[in-house]
Formats: sequence, C-alpha cells, structure tokens
Amino acid sequence: MESILITGGAGFIGSHLADRLLSEGHKVVVLDNLSLGRKSNLTQALNSDNFTFVEGDILDSKLLNNLFKEHKFDMVFHLAANSDIARSHANPDIDLDMTFHTTYNVLKAMRANGVNKLMFASTSAIYGQTGGIEVQENYGPLFPASHYGAGKLASEAFIASFAENYGIQAWITRFPNVCGERTTHGILHDFVKKLKNNPHELEVLGNGKQAKPYLYVKDLVEAILFVCRNSHEKINYFNLGVEGQTNVTKIAEIVISAMNLNAKIHYTGGDRGWIGDVPKFAYNLDKIHKLGWKAKLTSDEAVTKAVKHILEQDACNL
Amino acid sequence: MESILITGGAGFIGSHLADRLLSEGHKVVVLDNLSLGRKSNLTQALNSDNFTFVEGDILDSKLLNNLFKEHKFDMVFHLAANSDIARSHANPDIDLDMTFHTTYNVLKAMRANGVNKLMFASTSAIYGQTGGIEVQENYGPLFPASHYGAGKLASEAFIASFAENYGIQAWITRFPNVCGERTTHGILHDFVKKLKNNPHELEVLGNGKQAKPYLYVKDLVEAILFVCRNSHEKINYFNLGVEGQTNVTKIAEIVISAMNLNAKIHYTGGDRGWIGDVPKFAYNLDKIHKLGWKAKLTSDEAVTKAVKHILEQDACNL
Repeated sequence: MESILITGGAGFIGSHLADRLLSEGHKVVVLDNLSLGRKSNLTQALNSDNFTFVEGDILDSKLLNNLFKEHKFDMVFHLAANSDIARSHANPDIDLDMTFHTTYNVLKAMRANGVNKLMFASTSAIYGQTGGIEVQENYGPLFPASHYGAGKLASEAFIASFAENYGIQAWITRFPNVCGERTTHGILHDFVKKLKNNPHELEVLGNGKQAKPYLYVKDLVEAILFVCRNSHEKINYFNLGVEGQTNVTKIAEIVISAMNLNAKIHYTGGDRGWIGDVPKFAYNLDKIHKLGWKAKLTSDEAVTKAVKHILEQDACNL
Repeated sequence: MESILITGGAGFIGSHLADRLLSEGHKVVVLDNLSLGRKSNLTQALNSDNFTFVEGDILDSKLLNNLFKEHKFDMVFHLAANSDIARSHANPDIDLDMTFHTTYNVLKAMRANGVNKLMFASTSAIYGQTGGIEVQENYGPLFPASHYGAGKLASEAFIASFAENYGIQAWITRFPNVCGERTTHGILHDFVKKLKNNPHELEVLGNGKQAKPYLYVKDLVEAILFVCRNSHEKINYFNLGVEGQTNVTKIAEIVISAMNLNAKIHYTGGDRGWIGDVPKFAYNLDKIHKLGWKAKLTSDEAVTKAVKHILEQDACNL
C-alpha cells in the first residue's frame, strides 16, 4: 500500500485514476482547487476510508508543503492543469499559472520533502503542427501551437532538470484526446448542445476533416499505471493513445445518430476550428505497444461510448 | 534605421551585439539590471547618439511597457538570462525567473505593444545529454540536464505559442559555448585564477575529456544577424556553432602555454565537472552552413584568442 497524491484529482481523468488506485488498496490524497474539477466526480472515492480530499491550490506553497509533510507520499500523479485549450488564446497567463507553475511548485515540494517518483500528464499538444505524420516520442522540433502545449512542454523541461539535479524519477505520459464519463466540455458536449437547440442542422467549425485519436478514459488510466510499473528509466516518456483517428464529420454523425436525429451538417469552412488548434494529429505508438500495452476500445468506439454517457447524464439532469 | 531593444545588452554577448548594430546606424536601447552585465561593456556604445542604456529589470512589467511605448521598437533581441549554469543547482528559482520569466515578460510586452519580430538567444543546453552525437535542430527528446536549459526550452515553448497565436515572427538561435572579450566567468577564468594561485599545478574537475565547441563572440554576432536577415519562416531556428571541439585538457594546455608556465595537470576524475553539466557536445551545423554562414575562427583559435584577452585584461587591472 502506497501513499499517493493526485493533483487535479477531482477532474475528469484524475478522478478515474483515484478510483482505480483506491480499488487496489492504496491511500490516495486528491488536491484540487475545483476551478475545473468537480467534487461530484469523487462520489465513489469519498466512500473509501483510504481517501482524503483537499480543496486547495497547488500555487499555495504552504498548503502544498504541509500536505507533503502530513502524508509522506511515495509518489505524485500530477494532472492539475488548465484543460480548456482554446480559452487561453485571450489570456496566456492561464496556462502559465495553471499548466506550468503548478508543475514547478509540485517539483519544488517533492524536492523539499524527499519524494522522488512523479507521473506527469503531458500531451500531444507539445508536438505542435506536425502535418499529420505519425509522431514518435523523439519528434522535434517542439514548437507547441497553444499556450497549453507550451505550459506542458515547459513542465517537461523542468521535470527533466529536476530529475538530473535531485534524483527524481519521472514517468511522462503524453495524452491524446481523451473521452468518457465525467467530461464537462469539448466537441462532444458542443455538438449535443447545438443539436438540442436546433435538431435540424449542426454547425461544424472548419471543414469537418480535422481528425484526432480519441482514447477512452479507462484505457488511459490503465496505460498510465502500466507505464509507471513497467518502465524503469530515470525519465520514462510515452505517447499514450489508440490506433486510428475519428474526424469531426464522423463525430457529428455519431452524435446525430445517438440522438436519433436526421440533422444536416453545415460546415463553416477552413482547415481548423480555432487558433492554436492542431487540425490533424496521429501518434506513433510502437513504444508503448512494445512495452506490452494496447487500448481496448478503438477511437470510434470511445467516441460512441462517450456520447452515450453524455446523453444519459443529460437525461438524469432533467 | 531600425529601433532595436537588446535585453541583457550589458552582458558579454549582448554588448557586442549592441556595438555591431550601432555600427550599422540603428537606434539601440539596452535594458539590463546589471546583475550579471557590466556597464563597462558599453563604453563604446555609450559614445553613440543612437544609444540608450536603461538600468532595470525585465520582470518589472511597468518599466518594460513604458520602454516599449517610448521607443516603438521594430525588433527585440532577447538575451537577458542567468548565464551561470552551475549556480542554480542549489536554487532553481534563479533560472525560473532570470531565464524563463524574463522571456515570458518580453513576449507579453511585445504582444501588448504590437511588436512582432524577436531574436531569442537559446542554447545547446536544451538538448540535454546527447551522448556526444552531432545534434541536429530537430533532435528529440528534449530533456535538459540543467535548470538553465529547462528555462531556455520553456522560453522556446512560449515563443512558439505566441508566434502561432499573435503573429510574432521568431529567430531562435541556439548558442554553443562562446568566448572572447568581456567574459567574466567560466572555465578559462577559473584556470587563469588557479594558475595564478599555484603556477606549478592545475587542478582540473573531471577527467579532462569533456569536449565542447567554443565559438568566438564576434563570429556569434555575425551568425545571429545573418540568420535574422536570411531566414524568413514564422519560426526560424538554428544551431549556431563552429566545427570541431576543444576538450578540457586542450584548454588547460592553451592557458598554461599562454601564461608561459610549465604546470602539471591534476585531474579530479569522473566524466563531468559538475551536476547538470553535459560532458560531450557537438552540433550538426548543416542548416546554417546551407543558409550560407560559417565561423571564421576554429574552436581552438577562439579559445586561444579568448585566453589572450583575459590575460591582457588582468594585466590592465593590476
């Protein structure tokens, strides 16, 4: 039984990770400022005696250090970040603070308290505009298109220097688009909302050809733990993903079909939905496949399952 | 005639760049907090009517914005940074603030004031431990060994996202070890000091086999301007360097010979001088060579010239 800190653990992905680690019998502390996370994501976790929820901000160094002193963590899973990539176009400080400074503060607290195992939630956004090629983990140059990607790359940079200088071991897992239970925003939510407003026509930003892999959240959690337990370098770094992609037109069709509608799709045109978007993206997954892990659900299956959950949840909220 | 801001312009490299741009008739403003830079480096520049020196800190956003409003810069050359890589091992905040936050503040000021041309002084330190291979500009993964390298990589990350989001054009020039007039610290200074204390024996950290390319500072300044004027992408990125390397034993021999001594070299052993050091490093320079630039001095010639200057300067200070 290990003592584990999950930052951002009330969020979409962090809460699934908390459930999974609690089910294995570990002691889990979630630190989350609830700016994007929701306490309702922790309904299951809060039933466990091994679980502690702390509402607070990583940028509050005193709070963070007290938490480290109290719980003597064996390992930190750092997921706290801004998760709404498009909104920081207007204000890059959002990603400077929520995506980068959070990581830097976690690293300082780990160093100060002698904790030396870190899982970091990185992202395909560090790779920037790759022109749709299959991106390997050693791809370069790294010129992120979004401030979110910049904040994550800046985080990786200091994780590396802390690893070299203070003997911290790191598992950098680069997430693709992830979907499933407990999401609060994103293209699937947008499409459902739009179709509730107008069941006859769905407006799609761009030309519908933007295509990305969507990984089911429970597959992602398995991948994270698999990598942490089976890769033993000083800095371990992996693309986490699923083979294949789902383009925006296909997503629109899945949503329309799941809602039993017959809506027409209207495209606004252009090759991307918003500034900082990466219109086509594909991972090369050889590294994690060779380590012995593969996703259970395909990208299309993950999207279909996620849409079903959104509609069920909406139905509950009526 | 352009209006140009050089941050860190009282430093070793920045002051040479200021002299060069003034000689071409440009208006140059140097902003430097003199924490590492020295006003004496600007003796020549201060004779020019086109030159303005401002003592102040980039992290003072109000000062920075006022400077932008007053001088309506056409372009920024951002060189301000911590330049003493080893010292931030004890305190990484030095590079967080001086190497990364400085860049972020410059980017914000450029956005706020509509300035859209940036030359950034990056470094071979972003590449981390490369095992001595010839590193191309698209090398990955990028796991810097020092906080200095991390701060520079974090800077590149946000330069890329600001370029994509706000139309800033960037020239990222990655410096190697640089030597020549106006240096204040580093291995050449250390060896001269040690030999003045004990002319019979020189202690060398490591095994003497650490080898890096040394570029002469005036060659570097030519390379910076050549790249800015001949490469026209949104993000232009180049290794700036010189073919060949000079290892630590060779440096020791050059210093001993320049001082007319007959000292024995004593090695402390091990493959690197300090934590965060990259013991062997070599650039692939095909990209800048193809653009049409090559260094005039070899690495050994640059070291020899730099040692001569240090000894002359020391003689003047007696």
